[in-house]
Amino acid sequence: MDFDNTSDTDLSELGEFGLIKHLTQHIELNQASTVKGVGDDGAVIDNGNLQTVITTDMLVEGVHFDLTYVPLKHLGYKSVVVNLSDVYAMNAEPRQIVVSIAISNRFKLGALEELYAGMLMACKKYNVDLIGGDTTSSLTGLVISITAMGAAKKEEIVYRTGAKEGNLLCVSGDLGGAYMGLQILEREKAVFKENPNLQPDLEGKDYILERQLKPEARKDIFELFKTLKIQPTSMIDVSDGLSSEILHLCTQSNVGVDLYEEKIPIDPLTYNTAFEFNLDPTLCALSGGEDYELLFTIDIADYEKVKNIKEFTVIGHITNEAKGRNMIAKAGSVHELKAQGWNALLKK
Amino acid sequence: MDFDNTSDTDLSELGEFGLIKHLTQHIELNQASTVKGVGDDGAVIDNGNLQTVITTDMLVEGVHFDLTYVPLKHLGYKSVVVNLSDVYAMNAEPRQIVVSIAISNRFKLGALEELYAGMLMACKKYNVDLIGGDTTSSLTGLVISITAMGAAKKEEIVYRTGAKEGNLLCVSGDLGGAYMGLQILEREKAVFKENPNLQPDLEGKDYILERQLKPEARKDIFELFKTLKIQPTSMIDVSDGLSSEILHLCTQSNVGVDLYEEKIPIDPLTYNTAFEFNLDPTLCALSGGEDYELLFTIDIADYEKVKNIKEFTVIGHITNEAKGRNMIAKAGSVHELKAQGWNALLKK
Repeated sequence: MDFDNTSDTDLSELGEFGLIKHLTQHIELNQASTVKGVGDDGAVIDNGNLQTVITTDMLVEGVHFDLTYVPLKHLGYKSVVVNLSDVYAMNAEPRQIVVSIAISNRFKLGALEELYAGMLMACKKYNVDLIGGDTTSSLTGLVISITAMGAAKKEEIVYRTGAKEGNLLCVSGDLGGAYMGLQILEREKAVFKENPNLQPDLEGKDYILERQLKPEARKDIFELFKTLKIQPTSMIDVSDGLSSEILHLCTQSNVGVDLYEEKIPIDPLTYNTAFEFNLDPTLCALSGGEDYELLFTIDIADYEKVKNIKEFTVIGHITNEAKGRNMIAKAGSVHELKAQGWNALLKK
Repeated sequence: MDFDNTSDTDLSELGEFGLIKHLTQHIELNQASTVKGVGDDGAVIDNGNLQTVITTDMLVEGVHFDLTYVPLKHLGYKSVVVNLSDVYAMNAEPRQIVVSIAISNRFKLGALEELYAGMLMACKKYNVDLIGGDTTSSLTGLVISITAMGAAKKEEIVYRTGAKEGNLLCVSGDLGGAYMGLQILEREKAVFKENPNLQPDLEGKDYILERQLKPEARKDIFELFKTLKIQPTSMIDVSDGLSSEILHLCTQSNVGVDLYEEKIPIDPLTYNTAFEFNLDPTLCALSGGEDYELLFTIDIADYEKVKNIKEFTVIGHITNEAKGRNMIAKAGSVHELKAQGWNALLKK
C-alpha cells in the first residue's frame, strides 16, 4: 500500500470529500456479492432475490451535536433518522440497525436511557429493528456510530450515477430550515452564557427547531414513488446542503445542471428567520444542510406524475456535462454552482 | 419507554454486560427478516438463500489502545480482525466491512494512511471488501467503529445457545498470550517514561507481542470445520477471557460445565512470561482476553474428528445446568468458575 509522500499533510487541507477520496483510492473489491462499494449514500450487497443496502454515520459530541441544547432523546432519534435517510436515498426499505456508543463516566445511566429511548422511538416509527451494537467507555465525550441496513429489489435501487441529460431535478419538502433552527439554538446559547437568568426566546420557531432537533427521514416519499410508479434515475439525500448534493449527482452522473433559484422550496419561517439573522435564505438552502430531504432526477415523461404533488418541487433540469453546473438567479443572471457547505460559508 | 428510576446510577456500577442488558430490555423485533438480534457474536438477517451475519465493534483511544506503543498500521489491522473474529464465531464467512473513523486534527494525513493501509491489509488477507464508512473529526482522540457482514446458509450458523449436556468443550490455539504481550508493552512504556534513553527490551517475546498487536481471526478453523464436517453446537470467540466466554455459552445454553485447568492450552512463552510477572498463567488464560480464539462445543460423536488436530484442545465437557459451572484445578479441587475479566483481576 503506497500513499506517496503525503504524510505531513494536515487533514484540514483535504476536506472531508478529498480525504475520503484519498483514503479509498486503493480499495479493491473482490467479493462477488459486492455490487457497490464506497461512493453513494449506501453500499449494496447482492443476496440473491434481494439486495442489501448498508450505510453508516458517526456522530461526535462537540462536532456534530452540542448537549447544552440538544436533548439526548432527540439526539438518539436523529442519529437513527440520518442513517435511515441514506437508505431511502438508495430507494431501499430500512430494516435493521446496529448501534455503537462510546460514553464517558460523566454520564449517568439515565442519560444513556434517554438516548436509547430516542433511538427505539425512531425504530418504532420507521419499523426498523435494532439488532446489535457495542457500548464502551470514552475518555471525554459521547460518540454514536450507527450502521443501517435496508432491502430492495435489484431494479429498484437508485444510485447517484443515473442522471441523464433532459431529466428533471426535483427535491422533496423544503430546504434551509434545519440550518436556521441551529442559528436560533446557537443564539439562545450565547444569550444564556451572558445572562443565565434570561429564558430562551424560541417562540414561533417550532418548525425550524424541529427540523434541526428532530428531523424525519422521507419514508413517505419512498412510499409515494411506489404509489406513483416513479423510479428516479438518480437520488441523494440532502445532508450537506443542496449545492453540494447537486454537484455529487452531476459529478457521479457526468452531467451538467441548470438550477433555478426561484424554484428552491423555502418555508416562510425559514425565509423570515434568515432575514432576522441578515442571511440570504437561498444561501441557507444551498449550503445549510441537515434537511434530510430527497434530491432526485426523473425522466421528463414522469413530469405529469409529480407536477401536482405538494411534496415535490422541480427545481431544475439536467444538461450536457459541457454546459457546466449553473444556478440561474432570480434576476436572471447565471452563476456557477459551488459547494461551500455551512462550515466554510456561514460559521466564520 | 420506561426505564424505571435508575437515572442517577453510575455507569460503572452496572458493568458492560449489565449495561447492555439494561439498555436492550425494551427492544422489540418486528422485521420478518430479523432472525437474531442482540445477544450473540453477531446478529442474523434472513435474505432468502443465505443469511447475513452482522457484527460491530468500537475502539476508543485511551480505552482500547495506546498509541504510544501501538503502530497505526497494526491498529488498523487489528480493528478489522476483531470484527471478522465475531463473524467466524457465528460460523459464517466474512465478506464486507464498513468503517467509521473520528480523528482529531493532531493527526496528520500520514497517520490515517497508515491506519487505512493496515485495514486494507486485513481485508486482503481475509478476502473481505471495505464497502463504505464515515470519516469525521473528533475533539480529542481517535475512535474506530467497524461493522462486518458475513454470509452462511441457515443451517450452518452457530449460536451461543446450542450447547447440550454431554457435549465436549473445545478451544482453538492457545490462550493468555495477548494479555502477556500487553504486560510487556506496559512494562516497557513505564521504563521508557522513567528513562527515555533505555531501549525497550522485547527480545524473544515476538509471539506474545504479535498476539497483542497483530492478532489473527481463525479463518483456518472456520475452514477446518468444513473440511472435517464439524458443525459446532455452540460457539463464541475469546475476546474477554476464557472464563467469561464459557459463562456466556453456559448461560445462553442453560447448561453447566466442567472445565479442566490442566487442559487449558497455554504457550510456553506465555507461561514463562507470566512467571516473570508473578502472575498465575491459568489466571491469564481465564481472564486475559483478546486471544480471538474460537471456543465451541461439539457432539461427543465428533471427538474422533478433532482428537488428532493440533489446533483443537478439548478443555472440558458440558453438564446439566444444576451441576453449575466448575473448574477442576490441577490439584483436583473444584472451584466455581467466575468471570472476573482483566480489568478487575490483574490491573489493580
